[in-house]
Amino acid sequence: MHLNGWKGEEMITALAGGVGAAKFLQGLVQVVPEKEVTVIVNTGDDIDLYGLHISPDLDIVMYTLAGIVNEEKGWGIRGDTFHCLETLRKYGQETWFNLGDIDLATHVHRTNLIKSGLTLLEATSRLCQALRLKVKVLPMTNYRFTTKIATDKGLVHFQEYLVKRGAQDRVMRIEFEGIEEAQPAPGVVESILGSDVVVVCPSNPIVSIGPILSVKNVRTALRETKARVAAISPIVGGRPIKGPADKLMQGLGLEVSAYSVARLYQDFLDTFIIDVVDRAERRAIEGLGIQVIETNTIMKTLEDKVQLARVVLERG
Amino acid sequence: MHLNGWKGEEMITALAGGVGAAKFLQGLVQVVPEKEVTVIVNTGDDIDLYGLHISPDLDIVMYTLAGIVNEEKGWGIRGDTFHCLETLRKYGQETWFNLGDIDLATHVHRTNLIKSGLTLLEATSRLCQALRLKVKVLPMTNYRFTTKIATDKGLVHFQEYLVKRGAQDRVMRIEFEGIEEAQPAPGVVESILGSDVVVVCPSNPIVSIGPILSVKNVRTALRETKARVAAISPIVGGRPIKGPADKLMQGLGLEVSAYSVARLYQDFLDTFIIDVVDRAERRAIEGLGIQVIETNTIMKTLEDKVQLARVVLERG
Repeated sequence: MHLNGWKGEEMITALAGGVGAAKFLQGLVQVVPEKEVTVIVNTGDDIDLYGLHISPDLDIVMYTLAGIVNEEKGWGIRGDTFHCLETLRKYGQETWFNLGDIDLATHVHRTNLIKSGLTLLEATSRLCQALRLKVKVLPMTNYRFTTKIATDKGLVHFQEYLVKRGAQDRVMRIEFEGIEEAQPAPGVVESILGSDVVVVCPSNPIVSIGPILSVKNVRTALRETKARVAAISPIVGGRPIKGPADKLMQGLGLEVSAYSVARLYQDFLDTFIIDVVDRAERRAIEGLGIQVIETNTIMKTLEDKVQLARVVLERG
Repeated sequence: MHLNGWKGEEMITALAGGVGAAKFLQGLVQVVPEKEVTVIVNTGDDIDLYGLHISPDLDIVMYTLAGIVNEEKGWGIRGDTFHCLETLRKYGQETWFNLGDIDLATHVHRTNLIKSGLTLLEATSRLCQALRLKVKVLPMTNYRFTTKIATDKGLVHFQEYLVKRGAQDRVMRIEFEGIEEAQPAPGVVESILGSDVVVVCPSNPIVSIGPILSVKNVRTALRETKARVAAISPIVGGRPIKGPADKLMQGLGLEVSAYSVARLYQDFLDTFIIDVVDRAERRAIEGLGIQVIETNTIMKTLEDKVQLARVVLERG
């Protein structure tokens, strides 16, 4: 595949949250060899349920790249069953977080690997190996880092805000628990500094990319890297493509727009890919000193994903 | 139901291993109210797999009494699926121990309850409550107690000897790891001392009943209790009804016979229920000072189980 200005054997680092990022990465690995790609994944959504370590963003990225994700639902594994979860419900457990039986093996195995002394990074690497992924998937940190949402109903885990309570509560503040201690996982800063291109995937800027940026030294590395840093706007036509980014941005007093996202990334961003529908924001974003590329950013088909990856990689 | 010599509202304590015990208990709860029954269950077979605390004998007893056991297989839950286990295999894990998806909920929940500070007894009580059991099910101990088999191939966990290696190795010795520390679970000694009848179920005398008897103060309680202590022979016609009792007994230099089992229980046993086919051993057993009752001990139907329970409870 020919890419304008693309030399090949360049290293690419992607900052990723959940579904939007996973879709983009699906396209990316069609355009460049998997082994040239490192993905730094948000772990602020990680949650302990039933004593199991669940990493929703790591899982959606791994499952998507492994081709086993349930694309209809946007989470979990295609064809999975829920027999264990149904039984946990009978045992009086809350079961608002959907865990399929196949999916569960990931959590059981990860939890056991960590219990036996491996870091989250090492456990992730084992899982990726078993799923035959050649992309390097790095959790942003090996430390416990928990995104909590302060709402009018109280301070809750992000998953509780999103899944259990359906993102219905008014957002007042966002807290990153563990932010003081969290060191970037080995390879995170190195891959940002050593890459030719860094891509900020079209993920929630507040609770997906935000946590990654808040891990020590990550933001500095993004500012200092010689890599071209590009981001794809997760806001199209004043709304997130998926998820509660609008509610979270509003809660923080931010306008819900591509421009608003560009401002959040302003200090390290070279190129911002916005949807054609947001053409009107181009000037304002360029005014931040950021190059703007307009394209179709809605990824419905594999072709959409591939096209978007090409746009990101081709030098504008 | 009329039982000769049975006064009603008597307390019954059963010492139990796996399948044989569970079948007998199924009959017992048809004959007496569940709430009069306490079951002390072997936990020497407990094993940690994938970081989960698995208690095979507790589970078979609970599942059988809850009416959900897979009777054909003799383990696990009827209609269970194995999607999680199949995935753990793909993740490179050994999967010789069969764990169904429904079954898994028990292990996940138990492990989590223990992790959160509950004892095995308390966790078991929660599970029993959820399964709506009125029988009191007690693990023999809250402590880690592990039955290991020294074979010509090395020292292995009992489950590894039985399930993984198919009980094919030559048995040389049996070790109870944790025997020094293991205190009886709260209620174990009390229920033996406070019962009217203690029944030693037709379980493996070496690795099911043996561990229970080896827990501190249990054997003394059996000797000192005013309860009538009855046992049902797990050996019929010189062979165990199920399981490797013959190989284990032979490995310890014991004859495989009802008489041989009676000798193991001689110091605390009042009544021994043997199968009619073992009639020839009656005299020898009586010679140990033990009353002998002959009956059909093979439990194929519910009627068989009920009949056996009646024989045990009726005063000879």
